[in-house]
Amino acid sequence: MSRPLDLHPDRLLPSDTGIRAIARELYASVAGLPIVSPHGHTDPSWFAKNQPFGNATELLLRPDHYLFRMLYSQGVNLADLGIGHHKATYDPRKAWRILAENWHLYRGTPSRMWSDWVFSEVFGFTQMLGADTADLYYDTITEALATDAFRPRALFERYNIEVIATTESPLDTLEHHAAIQADNASGAWGGKVVTAYRPDPVVDPEFEGFRDNLKRFSEITGEDCLTWQGYLAAHRQRRAFFAQHGATSTDHGHPTAQTANLSAAQAEALFDKVAKGSFTAAEAELFRAQMLTEMAGMSLEDGLVMQIHPGSFRNHNEALFAALGRDKGADIPMRTDYVNALKPLLDKYGNEANLSIILFTLDESVYARELAPLAGHYPCLKLGPAWWFHDSPEGMRRFRHATTETAGFYNTVGFNDDTRAFLSIPARHDVARRIDCGFLAQMVAEHRMADWEAAEVAQDLTYNLVKKAYKL
Amino acid sequence: MSRPLDLHPDRLLPSDTGIRAIARELYASVAGLPIVSPHGHTDPSWFAKNQPFGNATELLLRPDHYLFRMLYSQGVNLADLGIGHHKATYDPRKAWRILAENWHLYRGTPSRMWSDWVFSEVFGFTQMLGADTADLYYDTITEALATDAFRPRALFERYNIEVIATTESPLDTLEHHAAIQADNASGAWGGKVVTAYRPDPVVDPEFEGFRDNLKRFSEITGEDCLTWQGYLAAHRQRRAFFAQHGATSTDHGHPTAQTANLSAAQAEALFDKVAKGSFTAAEAELFRAQMLTEMAGMSLEDGLVMQIHPGSFRNHNEALFAALGRDKGADIPMRTDYVNALKPLLDKYGNEANLSIILFTLDESVYARELAPLAGHYPCLKLGPAWWFHDSPEGMRRFRHATTETAGFYNTVGFNDDTRAFLSIPARHDVARRIDCGFLAQMVAEHRMADWEAAEVAQDLTYNLVKKAYKL
Amino acid sequence: MSRPLDLHPDRLLPSDTGIRAIARELYASVAGLPIVSPHGHTDPSWFAKNQPFGNATELLLRPDHYLFRMLYSQGVNLADLGIGHHKATYDPRKAWRILAENWHLYRGTPSRMWSDWVFSEVFGFTQMLGADTADLYYDTITEALATDAFRPRALFERYNIEVIATTESPLDTLEHHAAIQADNASGAWGGKVVTAYRPDPVVDPEFEGFRDNLKRFSEITGEDCLTWQGYLAAHRQRRAFFAQHGATSTDHGHPTAQTANLSAAQAEALFDKVAKGSFTAAEAELFRAQMLTEMAGMSLEDGLVMQIHPGSFRNHNEALFAALGRDKGADIPMRTDYVNALKPLLDKYGNEANLSIILFTLDESVYARELAPLAGHYPCLKLGPAWWFHDSPEGMRRFRHATTETAGFYNTVGFNDDTRAFLSIPARHDVARRIDCGFLAQMVAEHRMADWEAAEVAQDLTYNLVKKAYKL
Repeated sequence: MSRPLDLHPDRLLPSDTGIRAIARELYASVAGLPIVSPHGHTDPSWFAKNQPFGNATELLLRPDHYLFRMLYSQGVNLADLGIGHHKATYDPRKAWRILAENWHLYRGTPSRMWSDWVFSEVFGFTQMLGADTADLYYDTITEALATDAFRPRALFERYNIEVIATTESPLDTLEHHAAIQADNASGAWGGKVVTAYRPDPVVDPEFEGFRDNLKRFSEITGEDCLTWQGYLAAHRQRRAFFAQHGATSTDHGHPTAQTANLSAAQAEALFDKVAKGSFTAAEAELFRAQMLTEMAGMSLEDGLVMQIHPGSFRNHNEALFAALGRDKGADIPMRTDYVNALKPLLDKYGNEANLSIILFTLDESVYARELAPLAGHYPCLKLGPAWWFHDSPEGMRRFRHATTETAGFYNTVGFNDDTRAFLSIPARHDVARRIDCGFLAQMVAEHRMADWEAAEVAQDLTYNLVKKAYKL
Repeated sequence: MSRPLDLHPDRLLPSDTGIRAIARELYASVAGLPIVSPHGHTDPSWFAKNQPFGNATELLLRPDHYLFRMLYSQGVNLADLGIGHHKATYDPRKAWRILAENWHLYRGTPSRMWSDWVFSEVFGFTQMLGADTADLYYDTITEALATDAFRPRALFERYNIEVIATTESPLDTLEHHAAIQADNASGAWGGKVVTAYRPDPVVDPEFEGFRDNLKRFSEITGEDCLTWQGYLAAHRQRRAFFAQHGATSTDHGHPTAQTANLSAAQAEALFDKVAKGSFTAAEAELFRAQMLTEMAGMSLEDGLVMQIHPGSFRNHNEALFAALGRDKGADIPMRTDYVNALKPLLDKYGNEANLSIILFTLDESVYARELAPLAGHYPCLKLGPAWWFHDSPEGMRRFRHATTETAGFYNTVGFNDDTRAFLSIPARHDVARRIDCGFLAQMVAEHRMADWEAAEVAQDLTYNLVKKAYKL
Repeated sequence: MSRPLDLHPDRLLPSDTGIRAIARELYASVAGLPIVSPHGHTDPSWFAKNQPFGNATELLLRPDHYLFRMLYSQGVNLADLGIGHHKATYDPRKAWRILAENWHLYRGTPSRMWSDWVFSEVFGFTQMLGADTADLYYDTITEALATDAFRPRALFERYNIEVIATTESPLDTLEHHAAIQADNASGAWGGKVVTAYRPDPVVDPEFEGFRDNLKRFSEITGEDCLTWQGYLAAHRQRRAFFAQHGATSTDHGHPTAQTANLSAAQAEALFDKVAKGSFTAAEAELFRAQMLTEMAGMSLEDGLVMQIHPGSFRNHNEALFAALGRDKGADIPMRTDYVNALKPLLDKYGNEANLSIILFTLDESVYARELAPLAGHYPCLKLGPAWWFHDSPEGMRRFRHATTETAGFYNTVGFNDDTRAFLSIPARHDVARRIDCGFLAQMVAEHRMADWEAAEVAQDLTYNLVKKAYKL
C-alpha cells in the first residue's frame, strides 16, 4: 500500500472556506519570519562544538519523551528503546523499527505533525513512516546526519533562527555559551545562543542532591551558600554571570505556583533548616515559595525576565524513576491554583511595571478563570503560551479562545518551543503561526476585528511580542 | 491610514455559510425585541434626575473597570485616568488620549465590541478610535452629551428598554426609585426602573464598616439589629420596602457559594459573635453561609427571586485597594465548589418549586460538572447567564455548549447585562442575541433541532425566560 | 401546526460543507457495524425470559432518570410520573401526557435525540411528540410492545447487537445469565449477554445494608466474609463465578478515585473496623481506596478488565432519597482528582502491561490535565469514553478534542452506552459514531491525518478497540 507523506500547504488552517482564505493570507505574511526561541532545552554544546548528530534513533527517538511515553503506554519495553542506562545495550535500528511499526499510535498527536515535518522538509521523505519504510528512514536519516549540511550550525542557519535560548543550572559553567560567544566575536559563527537561569537544583530542597548542590554553589561563587546572605549573594552573582552569557530570563519549575512573603528573619530561619537538610515537606514548599519572591526581587534589580512553570507532578512513576531517573515521560500535570498562590509575591511586587513575570500552566481550567484576569490587571504579569501537553493545535486554540477576551493579545508573549528536539523547532513554531492565524482569521470572518488589525496582531504574536517580552 | 469603523450586520454570527444563513434569520426575529435588564448596576439617580452625563472620559472610561484594568496591566498610571481620588486632579482629555493611543490593546475583547457599538450607533463615528481621532472623539462625545437627546431618559427610550433593575444596599433610601415611581404615576415619565436587594454590607461580617452598617440598619428599620431576631426582622422589613420599589429579586455576592443549615440557637450564637465584631474568618464564612439559607427562606415567604454571585476574590491587589478602594479592576475569580457548598441550603429548601434561586459562576469548569446537573434536577435552581469575565462571545458559547445538554434551555434565565456602563447596554444584549442565535443555528444545521423550534427558543432566550424567571 | 419528526441522514455531522462530505463517507463505513456494548445496565431477565415490555411509560419514562429529572427540575411532581413507590398509584397515560406536554424542555439534549430515534426508527412515528400526539404515541407504543416483534430478543437481533454486558452485584445469583447461556448452548437463542462484577455493595462500607451484604456474601460463597482473608477469598470465588457467566470486566462506582497501598496488616485491621460497622467516614474512604488496589491485584491474576467510575455525589437530594431511594436523578458530579488519588495503586501495579484499568470521569477538567497524560504513560491505563452527563454530542467532542493529542486514539476503548434504556441503545452508539466521524473528518479537512488513516481509526473506535479493551 502506498502511503504518501504529504505536508499540505493548508494544514492546520480552519477548514471553513471563508475563514481559510483569510487565514492563508495572514499565514503567508508571517510564515517566513525568523524564529525567535526564547525558552527551550537544546544542548549548547551542539552549537559550540558543531559535531554531527548521531543516528536516527539517538537524535529523534531516545531524547523525545513524547515519543517513547506513547510506546511505553502501549506496552513497549523501554529497554528496547535504549532509554536511560539501556543506551549501553540496545540496538538503535531495532528501536527505530519499533517506532515505525507503531506509527499509527501517534495519529492526531502533535508528535506526528512535528515528525512528519522533519521527515518531509528536513530529510525529503515522500512515503510515510511505517514498518515497510523503517529501514529506509533509519538509513537515510543516519547517513544525512553524517554530512556537513546536517551539523547543528548548518541547521541553525537553514532554520532561520534569529536567537535561541537554552536553560542551565546555576552550577553550569556556561563554557559552551562562552565558546559560542567567542566564535561570535571572532566572526567564526554568527548564531546567537543565549542561556537562561534555572535555579531549581539549588532552590528546591527536595531536588536530588540539593545539599551537594549548595556546596558546589559555594565553590563556584566563593560565597558561603550555607548562610542565607551568602546564598542570596551567590544567586546575584550567578545571575550576573548568566546575563553576561546572554541570559535575559530566569525559569522556575515548581510543583505549585505558591509564593511567600516572609520577613527577612523568617526567611533566614527557614533557610537554615533547609540548608541543614532537616525540613518537612511543608517547609520545602514554603522555601520554594519564598524563593520565587526573592527571585522576583532580584529580577526587579537586574532586569531578568522571570518565568514560572508550575504544576507538574514530576516522576509520578516511582519504579520508573528509581530505574531510569527523571524526564522519562512520567511527569503528570496537577490542578494548580494561582489566585491565592501568587498573592504574597504580588502583594510585594505586583504593581511594579518594570518587573516582568511570565506565567505558564498545565491546568487549562485556570486560563479564563485566573490567569487572564491576573494578567489583565497586574502590570508585572504576562501569559506564556500553551505549554507542554497543551503545546498542540487544540491546546493553542483553547489558549487563545480562553484568554484573549480578558487579557487581550498584548498581555501574551508569543510562542515558546520549550524543546530539546532541535530538528523539529521550525515545525513547532510553524504550528503556532498557523493556529494563531486561524484564530485571527475567525475573528475577521466574524467581523470582530478588521483584516489589517489581524495582520498587525499576527506579526506581533509571531515576532514582536516575544522579542519585547524577553528583551531579545 | 484610514481605519473605518464598521459594524458589520453579520458580526458574531458563525462564519460557516450554511449556519450563518440560519443564524441571520433567527437573529432578525429577535434583534428588535425590547431590552429586559433584570440585573445591573446603573445609577438610579440618572433616571430620577435626568441630568446630562459629563464628558467622554467621565461617562465611558473612568467608571469602566474593564477598560482601565487593561491599561493598568500595560503600565498606565491610574492617576492619569482619574481613578478614585485622582478624579480631583486629572485631565479628562489627556486620559481619553491615553485610551485612544492604546486602543489596539482591546483587540479581541468584548470591551472593544461594546465600545465600537457605542461609538458607531450612539455617536455616529465612522473612523476607528486611535491617537489621530482621540480629540475628535472626545469633543464629539462631550458635546453630544450636553444635548437633550443624550440625557438618561432619552437614551432609555431610544434603547427600547422595557424595564431595568438596579442594585441597592438595604441601607439605601431608594429615594431615586421613589422619584421615578412618582413620575411614572404622574405620567411625567414612563420608564420602568426597579431596584434589587443586595444585602452584602449587612450580611458579610468582613465588609468594610460592617458594624456601623448594622447600626444604620437599626436606625432605618427601627429594629434592634444587634439581636438575631431584630436583625432578621429588619431584613424582612427592608425586603418588603424594596419590593414596594419594584424589586423582584435579591442578590448575594459572596466569596464562595457556601451555605449552612444551623439550628436557630446556633445561628443566634453565631450572630452574637459577628455583631460584636469578634469572630474568626471561618465564622464570617459560616455566617454568610447561614444567611444564604435565611435569605432563601425569606424568598419562599415573599417571592423575591434570589441571585447568588459567588467566587470572586475581591480586592486582590492589596496596595491598590488601600490607595483607591474597591471595584478597581482587581477582583479575580477563584475555583468555586457548588455541589457540596449548596447542599445545606438545598437540604432545607431544594425541593420547593415556589422558590427560585439563580446561580452564577466565574468558574467555567463547573458548568457541565456541577451547575447544569444541579439545575437539571432541583426545582428551585436556575442558571444565570455567563457572568463578568465570561460575559463575552466566547464565554457565552462555552456556557451554551456546556450547559444545554444537561440543563436544557428552560433551566436558564436569558441575559443579564450586569453593568454600570449604561451606554453600552444595547450592545451587550445584542451580543447575547447574536451568540444565542448562532448556537441555535448550529443546532439546526446539525439537524439537532427543527428551525421552528430554534425560532421559539430564540424568543424565549431573548425575552420570555427573563421575564418569567425574574417575575418582570 | 404540523411538526414533522425528521431524522436527517446528516444529523450530528459537522455543518461545514467540506468536512461534512468527508464525515459522511467515514460514517457510511461504520454505520452498519454490529453493536458491541461492553458496559451497561440492561436487565438480564429481559433476555432470559423474553417477556413483552409493558406500556410506553413503564418502558420509556419511569426507568429513565434523564427524562424525569428534567421534568422534576421544572416543578413536575414525581408522584405523577409513578417514580419509586408511586408506581402503585399513578396513571401511566397521564404521566405520558406530562412528558409530551413538556417535550420542548428537552430541546438540545441527548435525551431528545435518543428518544426521537426510538420514536421514528423503532415505532415509525412521523409527527413529533407533543400534547396533540401524546395519546397517539402512548397507544401506538403500548400496542406495539405487546407484539412479538418488540420482545427483548427480537429487538436484540433487530439492533444487530453482537454482545451486551450487564452489571451485577456479587450477591446476584446470575440465574438469568445462566438461563441465557443454556439457551445459547441448546441453540434456542444465539444472543450473547455477559455480566460484569460490580462489588460496590460489599466494598463500600457506606452502602445501604453493607453489613447484611457481608453476611449474604458469606452465605453465597461459604467463606467467612467477616474476616479479611475470607472476604478476599469470597471476591476471588465470585469473580471466577462471574467469569464463568461471561464477565470480562469488573466495575467500581466510588465517590472518588482514591486508591491506597496498605500493608496486609493495616488492611486487615481496617477491614475489622469496617466489618464491625464501627468506622469513620475517612476509614470508609480508605477502605474503598484499598479495595481498588486489591481488585487491581485480582485483575492481574484473573484477567478481568477493571473499570473505575468515580466522582458522583450519589443521592445529593436528601429528602428525595429518603422518600424514593437511589437513582432518582439526584446524583451530581464532583471535582475529582486522579493524579494523586491513583498513585498508590499505580505505585504497586502501574507498570503491569497485562493489567487493564479503564478510567472514567464526570470532571471534564481532568481530560487534558490528568487522564490523557496518565493513560499516555502507564501501560495499565486506558480512557473510557465520555460518561453519563457527558455522553452527548458536545461531551464527546470535548472528550476527543481534549484527550487525543496526548493519549492518542489507541489509549481509548471505543464507546459504552452505560444505559438501562434498552430501546435507545442503537441511537446512543449511532451518536458516538457520528461524532467520532465528524472529529476525524475535521482532522482530515485540516490535513492532520490522511483519509485512509481516518477510515482505519473510525473502524477501530467503533468496533476493534472495544473488543480488544474488554476482551470480547
